[in-house]
Amino acid sequence: MRYARTRARTLSLAEPLSDADATVQSMPDASPAKWHLAHTTWFFETFVLRDHVPSYRVFDPAYHFLFNSYYDGEGDRHARAQRGMITRPSLDEIRAYRAHVDSAVMAAFPGGARTLIELGCEHEAQHQELLITDILHLFSQNPLLPAYRDCAPDILTAMPRPMRWIEGRTGVVEIGHSGAGFTFDCEAPRHKTYLGAHAVADRLVTNAEWQDFIDDGGYQNAGFWLSDGWAWVQRDAIAAPLYWCDDKAFGLEGLHPRNPAAPVTHISHYEADAYARLAGARLPTEAEWEAAAADPRISQMVGSVWQWTGSAFLPYPGYRPAPGTVGEYNGKFMSGQVVLRGSSHATAPDTVRRSTRNFFPPTARWQFSGLRLAKDL
Amino acid sequence: MRYARTRARTLSLAEPLSDADATVQSMPDASPAKWHLAHTTWFFETFVLRDHVPSYRVFDPAYHFLFNSYYDGEGDRHARAQRGMITRPSLDEIRAYRAHVDSAVMAAFPGGARTLIELGCEHEAQHQELLITDILHLFSQNPLLPAYRDCAPDILTAMPRPMRWIEGRTGVVEIGHSGAGFTFDCEAPRHKTYLGAHAVADRLVTNAEWQDFIDDGGYQNAGFWLSDGWAWVQRDAIAAPLYWCDDKAFGLEGLHPRNPAAPVTHISHYEADAYARLAGARLPTEAEWEAAAADPRISQMVGSVWQWTGSAFLPYPGYRPAPGTVGEYNGKFMSGQVVLRGSSHATAPDTVRRSTRNFFPPTARWQFSGLRLAKDL
Amino acid sequence: MRYARTRARTLSLAEPLSDADATVQSMPDASPAKWHLAHTTWFFETFVLRDHVPSYRVFDPAYHFLFNSYYDGEGDRHARAQRGMITRPSLDEIRAYRAHVDSAVMAAFPGGARTLIELGCEHEAQHQELLITDILHLFSQNPLLPAYRDCAPDILTAMPRPMRWIEGRTGVVEIGHSGAGFTFDCEAPRHKTYLGAHAVADRLVTNAEWQDFIDDGGYQNAGFWLSDGWAWVQRDAIAAPLYWCDDKAFGLEGLHPRNPAAPVTHISHYEADAYARLAGARLPTEAEWEAAAADPRISQMVGSVWQWTGSAFLPYPGYRPAPGTVGEYNGKFMSGQVVLRGSSHATAPDTVRRSTRNFFPPTARWQFSGLRLAKDL
Amino acid sequence: MRYARTRARTLSLAEPLSDADATVQSMPDASPAKWHLAHTTWFFETFVLRDHVPSYRVFDPAYHFLFNSYYDGEGDRHARAQRGMITRPSLDEIRAYRAHVDSAVMAAFPGGARTLIELGCEHEAQHQELLITDILHLFSQNPLLPAYRDCAPDILTAMPRPMRWIEGRTGVVEIGHSGAGFTFDCEAPRHKTYLGAHAVADRLVTNAEWQDFIDDGGYQNAGFWLSDGWAWVQRDAIAAPLYWCDDKAFGLEGLHPRNPAAPVTHISHYEADAYARLAGARLPTEAEWEAAAADPRISQMVGSVWQWTGSAFLPYPGYRPAPGTVGEYNGKFMSGQVVLRGSSHATAPDTVRRSTRNFFPPTARWQFSGLRLAKDL
Repeated sequence: MRYARTRARTLSLAEPLSDADATVQSMPDASPAKWHLAHTTWFFETFVLRDHVPSYRVFDPAYHFLFNSYYDGEGDRHARAQRGMITRPSLDEIRAYRAHVDSAVMAAFPGGARTLIELGCEHEAQHQELLITDILHLFSQNPLLPAYRDCAPDILTAMPRPMRWIEGRTGVVEIGHSGAGFTFDCEAPRHKTYLGAHAVADRLVTNAEWQDFIDDGGYQNAGFWLSDGWAWVQRDAIAAPLYWCDDKAFGLEGLHPRNPAAPVTHISHYEADAYARLAGARLPTEAEWEAAAADPRISQMVGSVWQWTGSAFLPYPGYRPAPGTVGEYNGKFMSGQVVLRGSSHATAPDTVRRSTRNFFPPTARWQFSGLRLAKDL
Repeated sequence: MRYARTRARTLSLAEPLSDADATVQSMPDASPAKWHLAHTTWFFETFVLRDHVPSYRVFDPAYHFLFNSYYDGEGDRHARAQRGMITRPSLDEIRAYRAHVDSAVMAAFPGGARTLIELGCEHEAQHQELLITDILHLFSQNPLLPAYRDCAPDILTAMPRPMRWIEGRTGVVEIGHSGAGFTFDCEAPRHKTYLGAHAVADRLVTNAEWQDFIDDGGYQNAGFWLSDGWAWVQRDAIAAPLYWCDDKAFGLEGLHPRNPAAPVTHISHYEADAYARLAGARLPTEAEWEAAAADPRISQMVGSVWQWTGSAFLPYPGYRPAPGTVGEYNGKFMSGQVVLRGSSHATAPDTVRRSTRNFFPPTARWQFSGLRLAKDL
Repeated sequence: MRYARTRARTLSLAEPLSDADATVQSMPDASPAKWHLAHTTWFFETFVLRDHVPSYRVFDPAYHFLFNSYYDGEGDRHARAQRGMITRPSLDEIRAYRAHVDSAVMAAFPGGARTLIELGCEHEAQHQELLITDILHLFSQNPLLPAYRDCAPDILTAMPRPMRWIEGRTGVVEIGHSGAGFTFDCEAPRHKTYLGAHAVADRLVTNAEWQDFIDDGGYQNAGFWLSDGWAWVQRDAIAAPLYWCDDKAFGLEGLHPRNPAAPVTHISHYEADAYARLAGARLPTEAEWEAAAADPRISQMVGSVWQWTGSAFLPYPGYRPAPGTVGEYNGKFMSGQVVLRGSSHATAPDTVRRSTRNFFPPTARWQFSGLRLAKDL
Repeated sequence: MRYARTRARTLSLAEPLSDADATVQSMPDASPAKWHLAHTTWFFETFVLRDHVPSYRVFDPAYHFLFNSYYDGEGDRHARAQRGMITRPSLDEIRAYRAHVDSAVMAAFPGGARTLIELGCEHEAQHQELLITDILHLFSQNPLLPAYRDCAPDILTAMPRPMRWIEGRTGVVEIGHSGAGFTFDCEAPRHKTYLGAHAVADRLVTNAEWQDFIDDGGYQNAGFWLSDGWAWVQRDAIAAPLYWCDDKAFGLEGLHPRNPAAPVTHISHYEADAYARLAGARLPTEAEWEAAAADPRISQMVGSVWQWTGSAFLPYPGYRPAPGTVGEYNGKFMSGQVVLRGSSHATAPDTVRRSTRNFFPPTARWQFSGLRLAKDL
């Protein structure tokens, strides 16, 4: 059963964390693990149990204020930048909250809320990945550089073969979600778009290639950068991906030698764009990416790192937000954000879709974000 | 002759200004009028005379540092936010600088630089409009609210007829500059794009309609706003267009009664977007706008106010920046900006093109910016 | 034995805290409880054991970087504002660190370090009070408003008698520490100073009197305020003491009805100064305060709340910082700070001296700070 | 006649300035020259003419809002940081405003306002010095580094003899203004204070000696600095006095070779304090300075540069602000400021008093500020 599986996976991701680990907020963009555990539960409690199970008794009325993320339709809420002040309830109390809600959802399993339960599971899967990226950021701020887990998954070991260009489809194509499965509102409707002649790289850019970019003065030459990106590089003294440290990198398994064959990750959109310019290429649009995802010659589309595109996160033609408060889910963020496509090694496997549109501001680096090249033909 | 006409128009726009008026910078986004006069001259001195007229003697070597705007390829330059510190050279000295460069350009008129001279005239025309918007902003900061000119041009007096929806073209269309005339690099290449079923309003939104938006609680209801826009409304206590003041508005002719029939202006992209949502509509994409511009039933496309679109300012498929340092003109700003289409009453008439892509951040309000509605069909 | 008693008191103060409570930093001025526990231990480890006990083996070399507060002479250190990122080591590990250092200090008890051990105990006593004020601030940021302890100490219950003016000593008096007991360097040397004719209030200002100040428009009238204070009131919308909430106040025992008879506390120097002006009085100088402390007619000099004076924290004539790195203890903070005198209910009783000079910036409100009036005669 | 002389001197100081020079505000702490010219006139118009000459007709009612500096008792006013937006009225219009007020003051010369006229002249003398320091700062922001005047006054040419220590008076002394002449409220009342054994340097610290401080690593060693001072040095990358530039200095006469024999100037209190610590000395208290000013062996007490003391700007015992709105003149600034004593080469000569208390925040460097050493004996 999807619900139980999703909920259990979240608990297992939090298993290595102490109460303190789960409480601290390392920057305004990140949230405490305890908050992720509670907020995903609040989502079910509010949109499923409160709205669809009359007999449900709220676990603690104060949690509605504490664990609403950004739903204006649900009233006032705790300030985002203050999420790290919530030392109480404790991690154990949040686990009890989860159990309370789980038992109510599984007992009632209200038929009318089936779609909302599915949405809640997809929502929780997104927060699972954020829980991981946020803990990684927190641990990176601790001079002791603690490890979240013992050993890294074996993403890639051998050096990849040289990158090849794969010619993309030209003319009117259709993108966007189709079929019966789950989709977020922003992935729909499926619609026509026009692609000019172009090619897409058959693999991701590696750490070794990124080291070449550094050695070629990539971070020193304004000519490769968007204007805002160059200002950001200079103001924040950016000179390498976020967690690089000499010839090592910090990751979930602590500080470790950097794998030159692995896809570069923890880069911003600005860095990805500059790399592409120095390479005489560009980033793919999200339509090019989605069209390419059907091409069997193209590797590492999902399961490795998210891939920055050249597309702004904007509504598809005919876009309609979901009805009710959950309609705030995606639509109101369609400004100032850049689309990433694919999925990462930290993405819950059963949520991976070709149509997924992830999005972050162009300076974001704490996600598992990398790049794939494209070019006009 | 285009060059002489453009240069003379700039001087005439600066005619009502004192040395002090022309020197002060009212915010980092705006520039002093004196700086506009000097920078546009520097553009010709650098890219035409220095590069193409061997006998040319630079007017003052220090001006290269002072009046370069943002061309990294031309070396270090005076900080943008410090442009208002340049009390000397005086306005008269800058006029002398202009005369020096004008006489050299018109004497030599180097054939090889014909394209650059045309670019310089288009560039100067853009700065003419900025000079006006920047002076208006400066004067708005003075509690005496001085007038730039005596009376307003008669934009619109009678109340317009009710707005009608004009169905747009569907299918593959071509947009972007074509033909022999001048174009900025970002307007090219002409390329195919796909338009779904949609309609575009046949006129602009008026001041009277904007007042209805205010009366309907438009600025108080988070549900109509993009998330970043709502944060901006609350942080800056936004409650009306920039220069509205009770039932008056501040403009080039000073404080005056507001004309309910005139197009609303001095609104941000966020405000335009919120208005459209409350109206059950949306902003047109730039492709929809450009396709509609050929439709004779549609009024106020140019010459009134710039129109916010729903499109991010991004490269067209096949985009190539102009070669050399002038290639920094547009391309490096393709991040975080929103496209406006059309032209305003302050735009130099001989630079108006259907393909023009103006762009500003979504919070910008000191330009002559308004909106036209669109919707999906 | 002083050492054991001081160390045990710290542990007992931390007893009600969870690992999460002890880890979070609620603002840059405050520190996590765990950090207080570790830093006071680091002080003994560094200045006593490392410097005076050759056989001592450091508990963890990384702690030197983590738990140095501000001693430039001890090299680089973890950034103050980042103290809340240290989710590991855990609270239990810090307790083990304390036990390790305690056993080494008590075993060796190096005679040559007797003065440093005494300094370390006084230092730890200061951090005991900070631990309490910092936890109170942290809990105040949690919408659940948790209580640190069950019931408040009974500071004052009956309404006090009307305030009386006590005429102070006039002419040359001596202030500063004298005698054999412990003193911080900034309390010495004892020296002569001249007092003009003045009087000091025989008790502290109460909550009820502060409510009158509010009702009299104290926070609305610029005329009572120092210029910087008025700017602060307006920028931060200050309208009551820090933890007041309607007719309640938040304190160590949670949210509780406000006791009108208790001394007002959690006010800034600016507020204390404005209150005194509205009352036609002023704050006492620190010399007046210290002279008054010998007068038996004057109550609440210690043990209730710290009392803002009108004196800047500056060196006494002939001041000499302590030799070595511990000389950074007080001297380098003699800029921009205001002296508070007395002690609070949270001060370790065996550290109370008439000569104590506490100091904070004029905006600080999270300490147990109140006021007593004075006036010229 | 004092009034006419003071008013004429101000005009003469503004004589080298263009309308643009006189309009721009180079930082929030500085004011435009035009504003100084207008504000000093507003002072007479408001406190003398409006309040004491019934027949007076206000020059322009809008000026009351524009040119009030900080008198809350006079109602709302233009924001300090926006003073540079006032391109109109022009410099010539402000000169006409001055003439209007001058003729009214000199015609009426109301006997009842004699004290206020004297206060107005002293007030204007202070603004004369600020006009000079503010223009110097403005010109320093212009890459062309324009000169305010042709040649510098000959302050000091020969290298001074070695500094000697002059033993100061010990015991109870009196400081503060006495006698019949003008005084600002903060210089009174004359009162007793106690001085311990100390000595004061018989001359100021020179540029050559400051260069030694730099060469000795003065700006690199945290041990010499107050904690806030060290943070300021690091944040703002301070490494020399404000207008030093290689072996030159920028001044009223433009960029010029630095005179090693001249007193160092344009240093902050933090720098002065650090210099004194490195020299094994300290800054004098203001009482020590005032007592020393009567000693004939001590040179450069006035007329050269202002001298930072170690004293906070606080009320004298028995201090009473002047009655009415002019009581805001000094008293409300008695927080966070440090006293400077003496006078500078830019101070109006007829306002120099031994009792003068100048004051600025410890980071201020754009004044003509230097230092003299003192020490305990």
